Amino acid sequence: MAKDKKLVEAITSMDEDFAQWYTDVVKKAELCDYSSVKGCMVIKPDGYALWENIQHELDRRFKEVGVRNVSMPMFIPESLLQKEKDHVEGFAPEVAWVTHGGLEELQERLCVRPTSETLFCDFYARDIQSYRDLPKVYNQWCSVVRWEKTTRPFLRSREFLWQEGHTAHATAEEAEERTIQMLNVYADFCEDFLAIPVVRGQKTDKEKFAGAESTYTIEALMHDGKALQSGTSHNFGDGFAKAFGIQYSDKDNQLKYVHQTSWGLSTRIIGAIIMVHGDNEGLVLPPKLAPVQVVIVPIRQQAEGVLEKARELEKTLSNFRVKVDDSDKSPGWKFSESEMRGIPVRIEIGPKDLEAGQAVLVRRDTHEKMTVALTEIEAKIGELLETIHHDMYERAKAHRDAHTYDAHNFAELKELADHKPGFIRAMWCGCQECEEKLKEEAGVTSRCMPFKQEKIADTCVYCGKPAVKMVYWGKAY
Amino acid sequence: MAKDKKLVEAITSMDEDFAQWYTDVVKKAELCDYSSVKGCMVIKPDGYALWENIQHELDRRFKEVGVRNVSMPMFIPESLLQKEKDHVEGFAPEVAWVTHGGLEELQERLCVRPTSETLFCDFYARDIQSYRDLPKVYNQWCSVVRWEKTTRPFLRSREFLWQEGHTAHATAEEAEERTIQMLNVYADFCEDFLAIPVVRGQKTDKEKFAGAESTYTIEALMHDGKALQSGTSHNFGDGFAKAFGIQYSDKDNQLKYVHQTSWGLSTRIIGAIIMVHGDNEGLVLPPKLAPVQVVIVPIRQQAEGVLEKARELEKTLSNFRVKVDDSDKSPGWKFSESEMRGIPVRIEIGPKDLEAGQAVLVRRDTHEKMTVALTEIEAKIGELLETIHHDMYERAKAHRDAHTYDAHNFAELKELADHKPGFIRAMWCGCQECEEKLKEEAGVTSRCMPFKQEKIADTCVYCGKPAVKMVYWGKAY
Repeated sequence: MAKDKKLVEAITSMDEDFAQWYTDVVKKAELCDYSSVKGCMVIKPDGYALWENIQHELDRRFKEVGVRNVSMPMFIPESLLQKEKDHVEGFAPEVAWVTHGGLEELQERLCVRPTSETLFCDFYARDIQSYRDLPKVYNQWCSVVRWEKTTRPFLRSREFLWQEGHTAHATAEEAEERTIQMLNVYADFCEDFLAIPVVRGQKTDKEKFAGAESTYTIEALMHDGKALQSGTSHNFGDGFAKAFGIQYSDKDNQLKYVHQTSWGLSTRIIGAIIMVHGDNEGLVLPPKLAPVQVVIVPIRQQAEGVLEKARELEKTLSNFRVKVDDSDKSPGWKFSESEMRGIPVRIEIGPKDLEAGQAVLVRRDTHEKMTVALTEIEAKIGELLETIHHDMYERAKAHRDAHTYDAHNFAELKELADHKPGFIRAMWCGCQECEEKLKEEAGVTSRCMPFKQEKIADTCVYCGKPAVKMVYWGKAY
Repeated sequence: MAKDKKLVEAITSMDEDFAQWYTDVVKKAELCDYSSVKGCMVIKPDGYALWENIQHELDRRFKEVGVRNVSMPMFIPESLLQKEKDHVEGFAPEVAWVTHGGLEELQERLCVRPTSETLFCDFYARDIQSYRDLPKVYNQWCSVVRWEKTTRPFLRSREFLWQEGHTAHATAEEAEERTIQMLNVYADFCEDFLAIPVVRGQKTDKEKFAGAESTYTIEALMHDGKALQSGTSHNFGDGFAKAFGIQYSDKDNQLKYVHQTSWGLSTRIIGAIIMVHGDNEGLVLPPKLAPVQVVIVPIRQQAEGVLEKARELEKTLSNFRVKVDDSDKSPGWKFSESEMRGIPVRIEIGPKDLEAGQAVLVRRDTHEKMTVALTEIEAKIGELLETIHHDMYERAKAHRDAHTYDAHNFAELKELADHKPGFIRAMWCGCQECEEKLKEEAGVTSRCMPFKQEKIADTCVYCGKPAVKMVYWGKAY
């Protein structure tokens, strides 16, 4: 077995070099690859299968709360991008420009959408007339382009896949409600489906989206103690509506501006899945997400009845996503490979098991082995997948909680920032200057003002003036 | 009721002006809308729901034959596009060029993919080493851009949604097999799911895809007698493999070039659905595709028990995609609207029906009305949806057959082309000159050389030389 194991190339240990470990996992688990287009990636079948499952589950949750899908153009005329001042300032420096169509130069440049607020606004301005047309709760699944200088697979690339929801409402209250509702859809999805615990909160003004009145976020903590913003939801108030002239005639016959929101979750979340759950053997997939939940590895598969039994077992387990690995590799190689790919449960079955009417189950997350009678295996797998989900969530939460620290003054914060990777909870006076100083002097940014506030101290961790909010600070991807 | 009907704006009659009828249906059924980006469309929720159902069903059929989904970049560096000579000649004149990223001019222009052969080839050249890596049967769902001069919703737009499959095989035989297999997947999908009969065949050299050795197509006949190419499958032989250096070491340790295919089906198919099945009341959706299969319209919905019964019925019919229209519009308006949107079955239920324990079912395709006991309604709806699918297919096929003509000589062909919109079957000598003359002098192009060949005559319909193939000719979208 030792010899077999060596055949599967080892990956860098995560404690030795976390960044290299990440790159190794992405490559060896065959999730994605670089392309000839600088900064753009090829998502390979095993990586795309994750995105398909994410899409499928999230889309189901969207439809439960009244979201309808549409498709908008990928191009934005320059004049359209410029209509909302803060928005264009935020995005214009990082967009790709189309200047020629066919053999001719365009009269007006088009940018490839970095996000589609302007396109939805332009559409809504034509499509919304009366209060009867509201609310509009639309979403699209697409890719967007931002001309990043440095890129990393899933975490930051020039083109990435995402969904972007864009809504229009009659009142400010309804828009705020929708903004929070969608943030909660993301948070529940991360926790219930991906086994990733998240902190729900609001971004500070400095960190909010270009053009938004308020931005809400879910923040997850990676294994190395760095944070990853995993989904955001923005309330635009009537700012875009005024810039684009999106008005409706209300029941009282008055023309009123709509109130808008947008919200997005991207393939970045795959980076979070890798960095929250992965270990030194590779990927560890949460069972509800895993494209293959159970791999059956026949031991001595040439021996009489072994492969037949493996296939029989595959049929017995057809309520799960199950696969028999009948390739001509050795069992040891198959073990390592299924571990690298993060398959939640492995079943080993050989001649001795056949005789005893049993099989060996191995958990990917804990490597725990158990022998189970074949007659009980279906029920056992069902239980086990639920247990694994539960344990993965609890482990990630325990890790996060163990790496969440309180700082009562700047010295404490600086000490934590320098030596204890994780979230730092500290009070803040609300002024942008302190936020900038904390970044400059301690290298941390505000991740969010959590909905669940706690009063750690009375004064701002930096300036000592009266505090208004408890903030999660940290280093982030 | 007559008064109500007037409230729903009439559409142009299809016999009066088919093109205007098409535009009216697209607009009034709220399938799509123009955008501020010239030549690009917004696909609205009711239109996008069609594409989602198409995607879902086609993707299921793909996966049954071993297709795996991936995601490639949307940009192609100019040098990559130029690697295969015929391909670049076919596409370069109609692509959009990105010249600036952020604030800087790019060193090399990138085109927005018009199709992704070059990207897949570039990827396969790195990803394929050994015969063990073959076959590769990958697909992506995405949008592509072609800088068309004149555009029409769904039929021709500068950006459109599609799927593109790209495969690599060890042998020429296997590639040819896959090319035909995928064409048959498209054809079966059109017939079994969309109720659209298609002619399966091969394109002539003049009409084949840029860079392909052979192109296969499915051709459908629209209500106005024009053809629509509804899906294509291409065999590239080893042409791209040689241009991109895609080699594998075979079992005999020899380096060999792979053989490749590609195949695509786009949102154009929505145009076909409209133009094959639609009528003067609007859209007629095939039942398996329809996002809403059954609409329940309460009559006198304020009357006691009516709305409750409608909702009860909705629950009884939960195996189908069913919706109660409880808006404050009149029943007449709701009838017209559900007809415009093409919902296959309407159920009318009012106080008198409640008393009699029955409801009225109305077929969208034939306007046939039937009274059904509430106890039998679930079984009846199941049957009815199947019958409607069957009848829609048969009607479309009868229409196509009635508009398929044989021409034995040029005079006959010219007469048909001028006066009888439809397919013209005629023999051909195989030379491109005759094909060009037929276009010039009769305005028809070769749609395909059908797999089911029949010998209509011995000689070419144009030049009189010995014929090699029977060809479907026609005017096309």
